[in-house]
Amino acid sequence: MPQYKYTVAMSCSGCSNAVNRALNKLEGVEKVDIDLEKQLVIVDASVPQEKVLETITKTGKAVTPIA
Amino acid sequence: MPQYKYTVAMSCSGCSNAVNRALNKLEGVEKVDIDLEKQLVIVDASVPQEKVLETITKTGKAVTPIA
Repeated sequence: MPQYKYTVAMSCSGCSNAVNRALNKLEGVEKVDIDLEKQLVIVDASVPQEKVLETITKTGKAVTPIA
Repeated sequence: MPQYKYTVAMSCSGCSNAVNRALNKLEGVEKVDIDLEKQLVIVDASVPQEKVLETITKTGKAVTPIA
């Protein structure tokens, strides 16, 4: 299954919980790992990268895919 | 223009900025007022209440419309 990585601006556990919740609502997302200190979000998902990116964008957080 | 009010769980300014950003991306939203301390989000918008609620839900924050 593809794994995608993103840098996401998150400043508290409320921020990271929100990103986690939003991603887990997306069908095809199997696993979400978030490192708040490193501003890192790692997603295992059977959907295209763009779909995952769009879901994170809709949380209102600044997000950058890591190549 | 209709005005909608919501209680939204926000714990830092990163949280409230994210909600603000997400709402301002929604077409038809004219004004967003957020009170972080009161967990209050007030939206002036020319779109149905459900559309605004859906947009807030997609931020991953817990949200309750205020009647």
